[in-house]
This record gives sequence, C-alpha cells and structure tokens, in this order.
Amino acid sequence: MSSRPLVFVTGNAKKLEEVVAILGDTFPFKVVSQKIDLPEYQGEADEISRKKCQVAAEIVKAPVIVEDTCLCFNALGGLPGPYIKWFLDKLGPGGLTKLLAGFEDKSAEAVCTFAYSSGEPNDEVLLFHGRTQGTIVEPRGEHKFGWDPIFQPKGYDQTYGQLERSIKNTISHRFKAVDALRDYFTGEEGRALLSKKLKVEHNNEKA
Amino acid sequence: MSSRPLVFVTGNAKKLEEVVAILGDTFPFKVVSQKIDLPEYQGEADEISRKKCQVAAEIVKAPVIVEDTCLCFNALGGLPGPYIKWFLDKLGPGGLTKLLAGFEDKSAEAVCTFAYSSGEPNDEVLLFHGRTQGTIVEPRGEHKFGWDPIFQPKGYDQTYGQLERSIKNTISHRFKAVDALRDYFTGEEGRALLSKKLKVEHNNEKA
Repeated sequence: MSSRPLVFVTGNAKKLEEVVAILGDTFPFKVVSQKIDLPEYQGEADEISRKKCQVAAEIVKAPVIVEDTCLCFNALGGLPGPYIKWFLDKLGPGGLTKLLAGFEDKSAEAVCTFAYSSGEPNDEVLLFHGRTQGTIVEPRGEHKFGWDPIFQPKGYDQTYGQLERSIKNTISHRFKAVDALRDYFTGEEGRALLSKKLKVEHNNEKA
Repeated sequence: MSSRPLVFVTGNAKKLEEVVAILGDTFPFKVVSQKIDLPEYQGEADEISRKKCQVAAEIVKAPVIVEDTCLCFNALGGLPGPYIKWFLDKLGPGGLTKLLAGFEDKSAEAVCTFAYSSGEPNDEVLLFHGRTQGTIVEPRGEHKFGWDPIFQPKGYDQTYGQLERSIKNTISHRFKAVDALRDYFTGEEGRALLSKKLKVEHNNEKA
C-alpha cells in the first residue's frame, strides 16, 4: 500500500523532505511533490484550504495535499490569519509586532492546515490542523524564516527564531498538522477509508 | 447603441441606481445588475479585479463590470487594501484606527476599481480607478457605511461618515472610478473600441 502516491503541492524540496521525515514509514502513501500555481482565495481559513485543495485535485486527478499557514492575532479577531504573507511582505516582522501597539492582548495562534483530497470530484476534502499558541513579541533571534522572530510559543522564553530547530520542530504548528495527517491515515478511520477506495478501484479494474 | 446591455455584478439595487445616475445619458450601455457569487482572490488589487472580472465574463458571456474597493494605509504598505472588508468585519471602524497606533503616518488612500470585460475570452480586461487621499482618524459621524467614519478625505475636516452625501458623492473614490469608466466609453478610444466590436458582430451576423 505504501507505493500509492500522494502529491504534495509544493515547489520546496526541503519542505517535502521535512514532511516525509515526520510522516515516517507507516504512512500509507508515497509522498511526492509537484509545483502547481494554485489560486489563493480570500475568506475563512478552512474554506480557503478546502477550495485550494479542490482545485489541486482537479489538476492532479489523484490523491493530493496542500498546506496553508495562518498567523492569527487574537486582538484582531484572528487576522491577519490567511493574509499573513502579504503583511509580512509589506511590513516585515517588526512591523507585524507594531500592528498590535494599540492593543493590550498580544496573544496569537499559529495554525497550519493540511487539506487532503482523494482526487475524486465528489469526495469530501479532509482538513488536518496543527495549532500552537504564543505571544507576539519584538523580533528576536535569527530571521530564519518569515515571522519566526516575533512568535514566542507558550511555555518558552525564546521565539521560533531563537529555538533550536530540533525543539521548534516538535512544537510547531506545522509539525502538529503533519502529525495529525499521519495519525489519521495510520489510524482506523483512515485505513478504512483507503481500504474502501482500494476495493472500489479493484472492482473497477475487474469490471 | 444605448440598448447594448452591460451587466454590473452586484446584488445591491441602490448601488446600481447610484452608478447609473453617475454614468448619465451619454453612456453607451444600458447597465443592468446581476447577482453572482464571484471568487475573491488574494494578491495585488489590480490582479484581483482582473481575475474576478474574467470569471464574471465567463459566466455572463457578455459585457460585464465588477467593482472592488481597497482601503490602503500608507504606513502598512497599502494594506489592509483588498482585505479591508475582513478587517472591518473583525475589528470595526475603531479597531481599524487602532491598527495604526504604533505608526506615525496615518495617511491612507481609498481606491475603487471597476473592471470591464467585453465578455470575449481573449479580450483584455480594462481597469478604471478612482482614488481619494485621506487620513485615518478616530471614528466620527454616523456609521453610515463601513469604514466611512474613520476616513477623512484630504482638504476636509469631516469624515466620509460626517460629510453630506451630496458632497461625499463628488469626491469619493467610487464616484471617481465610475467617472473614469464613463469618460472612457464616451470618449474617442472607448467609442472606437465599441464600434469595432459592433462591426465584428454585424459581420458575424451576416456570415
């Protein structure tokens, strides 16, 4: 069953490698990457992921996953949320912190969502979330990646940008989302879903 | 020529009425409204308008206009920009003002974009902009419409929310955009474009 391919839409080879490492040997798909320009919609985060995954499935016509990241400031009702990349791009990490200057509440949630489609048009898109609570602080640490220097996860006195990679990887929103994806497909429900699919395919082949 | 229909994608009868009034008698289309749920994309404002108009044209298959509004805070590199409706929704007008608490520059630009497509797939989408400069202030005036109470146009000591409607209508970003749309199609270039189209259609009918 592990030769069944799952397309991860990304042009980032490092990301693929990292995801494959977290998924481990028991994951019932062989994850391969494909770079596809997908539309980015506006709206609620889950709806954005779902639509994007549907478009990817229409193109790939096979099992596919897409990833989205939100940085949600609680004082801003969850915004910038899915628009974080535009804000980071225009303001930089320091400017993002400044957005909260007028607000008491500096708490935030980093959310990673993996959306899975079987590739069949009528199948429901499945969502897997990873959430990490934290605080928005003045930039600290190497600017390793995006907003890492301003996000200090709860229970730590270092930002994502300061934490050892090995520690960050076990608490990050991305890790948790990939973990949820793996748990599902190595668990009962996911295995039942795939086994049902395999039976249908098998019958189709015979027909 | 004035019986040539132009579909304005809106579910708002008041908006249609207002736009028709600004366009006046010389506008070479009969503007009718149609409510269509169009996707809202992320990206640069012009690109969002262009894509949305293309989708509308694919559905309507006839001349069509769509409208977009951005509120661009200069301190935020033009954001929230196309995402303003989500920020208004989550923060309210007062919360929008608070976003700038950490920034010296309170200047902003209100931008309205009308995107026009002839309805033919290969035709370029035309964009018509209306821009009004102003300052983001503490909410003042009746909360007539959206972020009106926090936008004080340059040269006025009242906000959009306080100004007489008759005054606001002559300086607003929306008025200016509709004005640009009318100027184009009642001008030489627009008339030439339409006359070329009419000739092609005429020939097609004969063929």
